Amino acid sequence: MDKNRPLILITNDDGYAAKGLRKLVTLMRTLGDVVLISTDEVMSAKSHSCTIRDRLYVRLVQQEEGFTEYRCNGTPVDCVKLAYQKLCERQPDLVVSGINHGMNAATTVVYSGTIGAVIEACMNGLTAIGYSLFSLDPDADFDHIDTAILEITKKVLSEGLPKGVCLNVNFPKRCEEPMRGIKVCRQAACRWVELFKDKFDENGEQFYDLEGTFESDDVLPDTDLWALQHNYASLVPTCFDWTAHAQIEPMNSFEQINIRP
Amino acid sequence: MDKNRPLILITNDDGYAAKGLRKLVTLMRTLGDVVLISTDEVMSAKSHSCTIRDRLYVRLVQQEEGFTEYRCNGTPVDCVKLAYQKLCERQPDLVVSGINHGMNAATTVVYSGTIGAVIEACMNGLTAIGYSLFSLDPDADFDHIDTAILEITKKVLSEGLPKGVCLNVNFPKRCEEPMRGIKVCRQAACRWVELFKDKFDENGEQFYDLEGTFESDDVLPDTDLWALQHNYASLVPTCFDWTAHAQIEPMNSFEQINIRP
Repeated sequence: MDKNRPLILITNDDGYAAKGLRKLVTLMRTLGDVVLISTDEVMSAKSHSCTIRDRLYVRLVQQEEGFTEYRCNGTPVDCVKLAYQKLCERQPDLVVSGINHGMNAATTVVYSGTIGAVIEACMNGLTAIGYSLFSLDPDADFDHIDTAILEITKKVLSEGLPKGVCLNVNFPKRCEEPMRGIKVCRQAACRWVELFKDKFDENGEQFYDLEGTFESDDVLPDTDLWALQHNYASLVPTCFDWTAHAQIEPMNSFEQINIRP
Repeated sequence: MDKNRPLILITNDDGYAAKGLRKLVTLMRTLGDVVLISTDEVMSAKSHSCTIRDRLYVRLVQQEEGFTEYRCNGTPVDCVKLAYQKLCERQPDLVVSGINHGMNAATTVVYSGTIGAVIEACMNGLTAIGYSLFSLDPDADFDHIDTAILEITKKVLSEGLPKGVCLNVNFPKRCEEPMRGIKVCRQAACRWVELFKDKFDENGEQFYDLEGTFESDDVLPDTDLWALQHNYASLVPTCFDWTAHAQIEPMNSFEQINIRP
């Protein structure tokens, strides 16, 4: 690998064959040397889970000038851990996850394996971005976001990101109008409202299938969901400090509780 | 069930047989009617993952006055979703997860199935608390934290919690001195530094086993880890808005990027 080119580590949660992943590889190879590590299976909704009781196997799949591809039996978070510790010759300059088939805006970040990988990289001091497209179509068109991905990535490669902060970038799906621009915004409080369908298996035993509808009760102009609904890309600076800092002071009455039996 | 008593939903990530779970059931039954739903398997490090491609089965295990117990083949997050939507006769007044064998302070919250369940409840507008003990011993002593758990829970049942905020409560393990009190604090930036051990299986194929050491580079007096190390319980108000709000303004130069090809 060329030590003068940035080293870019790529992963995703849609599995190794996903079109969005292959698009991201093509784009990133124009910017640097690429190490790709993806998962044998689709890892959507695996969030930040990692493998602590099973054996993790990694296979080298492909190697050529400026590009190395691995595959593993773990989760996206395992991919990041393994890659930067065991597989990369040097510390990656950037970790990119995606391009996810389906948006990871609003509170869906909490479930996302794509964003799990980004947060994991960020927790380990690596610069990291997640890219997602607001379309679940496995054959979705990604060409309208090429320039935006390249320019955002170039800016982050040259300027870095603040400590403890990563980027969660979502793009609207292609429509007749060109995408309007990028909005830096906050995570909307909108959420999936799940519906469990009662079903019965071949033995007559009841089981549940998870379905859901998206409840949009916080689509204000400063949110990622508003941006996507108005044909903008959303860019949310994202952190792994989940403290509700504004509540520390109001809650200090808990310190008055008598804990002696 | 008695409609005048609070309805308390309990889950955990250590599986149905864990001592900490049974302790929590005993304590909560003194405060209200209890619905318990736990998982067939240990779900540590499953974070916020939920089941979207497999069938979810639920079994009624036990039912008596004021107590109903279910078990399911999913994750802690699935437990919460299933319970409040399909199993509880009415909306739970409180969701409690734990008592976890092992601490969920600092950035370990990100991996925790126990906290995943708490966040899931909070995202759905339910009042929720996670309780964890700083000891991985399956036979750990929980008796020194009875009063603290009861008093914190009673306060939350009577006063509620702010919208979008849940509690992550960790206790030190029993030592010679009595626990000193409760500290309302922030999540420390300390983290697990993983080490993958290279091993070989019976076929000579290499695999990795995850081990780790805890890197304490942020043990200031306002953190949860400081509290635990000084024999206090830590109480961190926790949220699912991961936006780094302070970075929105400084990052608005991203809006100047030209996204046209």
